[in-house]
Amino acid sequence: MTNRLTDLLNIKYPVIQGGMVWCCGWRLASAVSNSGGLGLLGAGSMSPEILREHIQKCRAATAQPFGVNVPLIYKDVEGIIQVIMEERIPIVVSSAGNPKTWTKQMKDKGITVIHVVSSSKFAQKAEEAGVDAVIAEGFEAGGHNGREETTTMALIPQVRRAVSLPLIAAGGIATGSQMLAALCLGADGVQIGTLFALSEESSASPEFKRICTELKEGDTQLVLKNLSPTRLIKNAYYEKIKAAEDRGANTEELLEIIGKGRTKLGIFEGNLIDGELEIGQVASLIRKVESVEAIIHCLIDDYNLALGKLKPLL
Amino acid sequence: MTNRLTDLLNIKYPVIQGGMVWCCGWRLASAVSNSGGLGLLGAGSMSPEILREHIQKCRAATAQPFGVNVPLIYKDVEGIIQVIMEERIPIVVSSAGNPKTWTKQMKDKGITVIHVVSSSKFAQKAEEAGVDAVIAEGFEAGGHNGREETTTMALIPQVRRAVSLPLIAAGGIATGSQMLAALCLGADGVQIGTLFALSEESSASPEFKRICTELKEGDTQLVLKNLSPTRLIKNAYYEKIKAAEDRGANTEELLEIIGKGRTKLGIFEGNLIDGELEIGQVASLIRKVESVEAIIHCLIDDYNLALGKLKPLL
Repeated sequence: MTNRLTDLLNIKYPVIQGGMVWCCGWRLASAVSNSGGLGLLGAGSMSPEILREHIQKCRAATAQPFGVNVPLIYKDVEGIIQVIMEERIPIVVSSAGNPKTWTKQMKDKGITVIHVVSSSKFAQKAEEAGVDAVIAEGFEAGGHNGREETTTMALIPQVRRAVSLPLIAAGGIATGSQMLAALCLGADGVQIGTLFALSEESSASPEFKRICTELKEGDTQLVLKNLSPTRLIKNAYYEKIKAAEDRGANTEELLEIIGKGRTKLGIFEGNLIDGELEIGQVASLIRKVESVEAIIHCLIDDYNLALGKLKPLL
Repeated sequence: MTNRLTDLLNIKYPVIQGGMVWCCGWRLASAVSNSGGLGLLGAGSMSPEILREHIQKCRAATAQPFGVNVPLIYKDVEGIIQVIMEERIPIVVSSAGNPKTWTKQMKDKGITVIHVVSSSKFAQKAEEAGVDAVIAEGFEAGGHNGREETTTMALIPQVRRAVSLPLIAAGGIATGSQMLAALCLGADGVQIGTLFALSEESSASPEFKRICTELKEGDTQLVLKNLSPTRLIKNAYYEKIKAAEDRGANTEELLEIIGKGRTKLGIFEGNLIDGELEIGQVASLIRKVESVEAIIHCLIDDYNLALGKLKPLL
């Protein structure tokens, strides 16, 4: 199967790996690209020079296209984009910020720009800013999330009506059946975060991967809704935030609890008590850590199996 | 198409109308059953004698099977179930309560029992209680909702793994594409609430239907999470609850704000300021009030159209 998304990105399968912080170095990105998807380096947890190193290693590890995920509110964003241009990265996924700020400069250098949104209003703004495609991410996704809490099932048809760009669904997709469901909803492809964050090639700590593959339904929750809504595993750190919110804590108190470096501590260093453990609801469907190659093979098989079971209504 | 759900319920299409309070009298239920789905009378807003009247009128209006939705925590539940048995209703959808309490007695009278759940844990409990099928309802659904906030996209595959019963997906389904997506996820059929609540035959007030067809994404929100999570339109009544929650109000204070009769006031009487306006996220996809016949026709057409667009991955 080819479609306008696989054509745009020059990939075999319409599968983009999410650019999650502390998970997405050159090993993961190159493995995804080598397996027929689009691998992304996660610049949100890299300095410009570390990113350059990962780009060079990734290029040595795959002949396929790969991209970089850039959170636009990141402090080093200017340096990151300079490295991306110097290294002639063909695809950038931007998130968490205004797509107007950087899209034109990147497009002028021939970069394909995809922006992550959580509503059709933001999708329209991204289209106006000139992006090539949008990723619409639902409430079930891990980590930072939209304020309106629209789920993937409700969001994708809404964004599909609002913009004519290629559309990638994200949030709640960890099986081929879910991928097929996203395509039913009008998406041209999917972005998959949680499943790849828990792959062998992810740079997340073994402790983080282990706790995620043991999660039950309801073990993650969206908190910090009045600050910056974030889906976290309900660990001791989460409980501190929740208790503060329940007693009506203000922004200052919440920022003090959050402190600094919590995602590195949790995801990369494996501190499951005090770390910020960002993962999607679908973690409860993932029961083991596997190689990217096995994961993508299984996704495609499951997609085709689910498709074969569908029947028309007469 | 027939499957084990259409066989179990003796219906043409695998579509169940949700049994929402103040929307689901005999006009709506008979119209859905006459159009090939399963209509339900919503006993949650009826006294036993009013229910009997609706059953008799519904029976006069359709030769097709229809059922009754019974919230098990409802104060008149005993009287409601007695009427259901006396009137030889073939199908009961129970919700909001323990399925162990009534399932055996209803099954002994030959009633097909379906229970609404929000997690695979509750689905397993319903299976143990002997129900014939489960409806799994995601976070995007209107009105009362599960504590774990699992979305339809994440929930359906999880429940599909946990129980072998026929499975009906609910929450976020208002188009044929969304219905097809739910079947991809492993459901045997769908329960549709919001779309039918806004149909011509729904007994909701014209004011309620109008405001719902004008909602944008993000205009509903789940509140009362520590009490009984409920998805509401963000009207003045909602803002009162939200402000109280943000300042850390306790249960007593919240119950005083809620008071009594709020759903009747909002949905049935059309008081858009002080009423409790329960509706699902997908309201923002529904732009007009139509007849049930037209709605179901459109659902089936859209389902088949979406199915025709899917392609295998090679």
